[in-house]
Amino acid sequence: MSSPICENGGSSKPVKKNAVLVDGVYLNGPIMDSKAGERFVEEAFPIIMEEAIRKATDVNEKVCEWQPPEELKQCLDLDLREGGEAPQQILKRCKDVIKYSVKTGHPRFFNQLYAGMDHYSLVARFITEAINPSVYTFEVSPTFVMIEEVILKKMIECVGWEGGDGIFSPGGSVSNMYAVNLARYKHCPSIKDEGLSGMPRLVMFTSEECHYSIGKAAAFLGIGTKNVYVVPADERGKMIPEELEKQVQRAVKEGAVPFIVCATAGTTVLGAFDPLEKIADICQKHGLWFHVDASWGGGALMSNKHRHLLNGIQRADSVAWNPHKMLMAGIQCCAFLVKDKTGLFEKCHSSQASYLFQQDKFYDVSYDTGDKSIQCSRRADAFKFWLMWKAVGTRGLEDRVNRALALARYLAEEIKKKEGFRLILEPEYANVCFWYIPPSLRNLPDGPEFWKKLHQVAPVIKERMMKKGSMMVGYQPHRDKVNFFRQIIISPQVSREDMDFVLQEIEALGKDL
Amino acid sequence: MSSPICENGGSSKPVKKNAVLVDGVYLNGPIMDSKAGERFVEEAFPIIMEEAIRKATDVNEKVCEWQPPEELKQCLDLDLREGGEAPQQILKRCKDVIKYSVKTGHPRFFNQLYAGMDHYSLVARFITEAINPSVYTFEVSPTFVMIEEVILKKMIECVGWEGGDGIFSPGGSVSNMYAVNLARYKHCPSIKDEGLSGMPRLVMFTSEECHYSIGKAAAFLGIGTKNVYVVPADERGKMIPEELEKQVQRAVKEGAVPFIVCATAGTTVLGAFDPLEKIADICQKHGLWFHVDASWGGGALMSNKHRHLLNGIQRADSVAWNPHKMLMAGIQCCAFLVKDKTGLFEKCHSSQASYLFQQDKFYDVSYDTGDKSIQCSRRADAFKFWLMWKAVGTRGLEDRVNRALALARYLAEEIKKKEGFRLILEPEYANVCFWYIPPSLRNLPDGPEFWKKLHQVAPVIKERMMKKGSMMVGYQPHRDKVNFFRQIIISPQVSREDMDFVLQEIEALGKDL
Repeated sequence: MSSPICENGGSSKPVKKNAVLVDGVYLNGPIMDSKAGERFVEEAFPIIMEEAIRKATDVNEKVCEWQPPEELKQCLDLDLREGGEAPQQILKRCKDVIKYSVKTGHPRFFNQLYAGMDHYSLVARFITEAINPSVYTFEVSPTFVMIEEVILKKMIECVGWEGGDGIFSPGGSVSNMYAVNLARYKHCPSIKDEGLSGMPRLVMFTSEECHYSIGKAAAFLGIGTKNVYVVPADERGKMIPEELEKQVQRAVKEGAVPFIVCATAGTTVLGAFDPLEKIADICQKHGLWFHVDASWGGGALMSNKHRHLLNGIQRADSVAWNPHKMLMAGIQCCAFLVKDKTGLFEKCHSSQASYLFQQDKFYDVSYDTGDKSIQCSRRADAFKFWLMWKAVGTRGLEDRVNRALALARYLAEEIKKKEGFRLILEPEYANVCFWYIPPSLRNLPDGPEFWKKLHQVAPVIKERMMKKGSMMVGYQPHRDKVNFFRQIIISPQVSREDMDFVLQEIEALGKDL
Repeated sequence: MSSPICENGGSSKPVKKNAVLVDGVYLNGPIMDSKAGERFVEEAFPIIMEEAIRKATDVNEKVCEWQPPEELKQCLDLDLREGGEAPQQILKRCKDVIKYSVKTGHPRFFNQLYAGMDHYSLVARFITEAINPSVYTFEVSPTFVMIEEVILKKMIECVGWEGGDGIFSPGGSVSNMYAVNLARYKHCPSIKDEGLSGMPRLVMFTSEECHYSIGKAAAFLGIGTKNVYVVPADERGKMIPEELEKQVQRAVKEGAVPFIVCATAGTTVLGAFDPLEKIADICQKHGLWFHVDASWGGGALMSNKHRHLLNGIQRADSVAWNPHKMLMAGIQCCAFLVKDKTGLFEKCHSSQASYLFQQDKFYDVSYDTGDKSIQCSRRADAFKFWLMWKAVGTRGLEDRVNRALALARYLAEEIKKKEGFRLILEPEYANVCFWYIPPSLRNLPDGPEFWKKLHQVAPVIKERMMKKGSMMVGYQPHRDKVNFFRQIIISPQVSREDMDFVLQEIEALGKDL
């Protein structure tokens, strides 16, 4: 047999005297030994616990074990073969994959808009994987349908709406697509059936600091990237409302049809919040759908201290908010929320498949929520957030957000004090953007040569930190600024000691440059 | 503190004499006790093992513990509160959620196009959850990027192409959307930037038996549901090529622009395979993109005995194939594959975000595959399939497919022999469609009254089986046929004894109707 867990399967030996043979296959008894499978899971668990949970979050371990692509291929033995491998060999594969994976829950992982490890969420995710649900009908996902409903309702409260609707989607990018599609449907329902050909040109608006998914949405939904009118942002990264007004008027003058403004609450690089109240005024004036991409910044809604950053969000028609980012619910956990209570999701997306959404079921089929979605099978991403919330409480989530933002503030102050570091802008949220200027550049005049050399500093420090495995911090050029570090602070496992470490480590890695 | 795992956090007591206070928050040390979190995971594991794995796949346990929506709300205590709950209380919540969830890995779950439990895949999924990767760059997902590449290459070989490209997507529906978008881009690249407004009307073709996601794709991508020309299928559920030819000619005559044919390999209800060779001929003749939705039927590509069902797929331009269905990789695991080797994904979808896809990285950035996607954060769905394949081998996967189809054949033969059962059509794949006719209807003449009464039988039996928790089998009306059962056979944990049980149980539950 190809696998040690398959014991009496396939086209090999019969298992009983009165065996049933069909198409050359014996059909008596299972061909998979579930007990052996369970033993495998039991043997794997201590490895997961030690390597992927304990060590992966231990500050004394490496955050990554760097190997270049070609070398990594060799380390992992990637090839798939005719025959299977013994469980012990598979356990070794598991160890190898864990070893060479980046530990995104490590206290020194500051590289993306997610980080940390919440053990409650993790347990919920293990359960979800074991239960393997698909959230389309109450029939096959009773618990997860109900949990999704409750947590969406709670998130809608946080936004400040009196009711609304929502769905969990596979990413903020898809949530933004939902927003564009619902706005388009609201603007002109016949587009669902007739399509855009022959329709007037639709135009959407967003700032130059928006997430790249807005452009992808325009391309994918047939609107076209050129019909995304990009509104300038101020030096803090916030959309300038007067410029938005100008762009709307420009579109109207051109004979095009404006239909949606996509504002951002928490931009990817700078962590900036667009002025939502003023944008809401403009949307109201022109009758435009007001979408807020709060995928990253939505976390601040949990904090009484910081939710003012999103003042005006209660006037939005739709909101994208990813609890897998600031709230650590685990990738992916992305809510798309709408203020509408008239069943816009169903009207815009439903196709009433008779094999799935039968109307003669014996329970209230309004709980069969799958037809709201553009997906068919859909993961139970609400559960992990719900269990974490149950365990930590609203107050616990708030404490985490407050703490992360206080740490960002602390880091910014340290940067301002420390020689060789220059803060790009005062953080409002959890993005701290700064340059490290090595001693060799400190006396150069502020001219093209200085900036050219500084541009090359962050990539080299990044390479060194990854090869050492000491930490991971992102960098990028942005608008008129050469490469700078962007440190993201999220996890309640980190503290000021980690902030201090980051600056010391960057200095240690880059002082010779 | 709101949560017992948070020990010294938030705005409460300082932990050190030289504490740093920012915005009213002490910043020394973590505010989360990781050790307590690890203990929680360790305590949860035996519960998951016993309740969500062992019992959930034990044929002597119930497949579901039915509660109506309102009662279920009470059972679960869904409310989210200011304060958190103690770990022991959270463990109870976990048990409750498991208890009331449908056990989709149970040997008597025949309700959807997925079923069973593969323990290797499950362990990979636990690891993925602990590592919490997002597959967009080699930098943060080195292992998973490499594994995705290898498994896509292997799947492309199975399709029969000499090379190609692919990506894992969040569902077959999204894969079908990818197909439509790539086909549209290939047909007219300027649509990405210009949009569809002012363009000639684009038309897509699919059969009346296609998955409902084709219509959703047309709506979402701005093409319009009316521009999906629906081709009649024969009585086996296969697209009629001559009718496709007629529809293409109709579109051309109308001045519209045909650009894609979406064929289906393994339809949802009947498990039918469209005649791919003949459809390929028509696509070739008219220069149309040929997409095959093999989300369900793709599993047959693993079987030398059954892959003939997909003869002609090697001529497709793109294929959707979900290993989470027949191959039990766990929801979701959905590959979208294209024959093109000229970087169509990047051209069609890229947006070159400078904060993520920096070009001055220290490694080969061709491994930063995220810009191929319409998503930003993306799950490592390839890994679970890869680990399972490693363990079971190509041969083991083939054995499972052969066995499932042999069991379907066996069940069909039993249905033909058994009084009161009527087979709808001979199965080609793992869908067995049949009516159960209770004794009270057996002597009725074949007229409207008979069919009206028969239509009501399956829903009642379904209600009874769910309330009893003995098994789950789907039913639906389909085209001119009243409600019938659709039994799906996948898992290597089931055997002929389970097939026999299904028929006996339906009879026991419905003989009084």
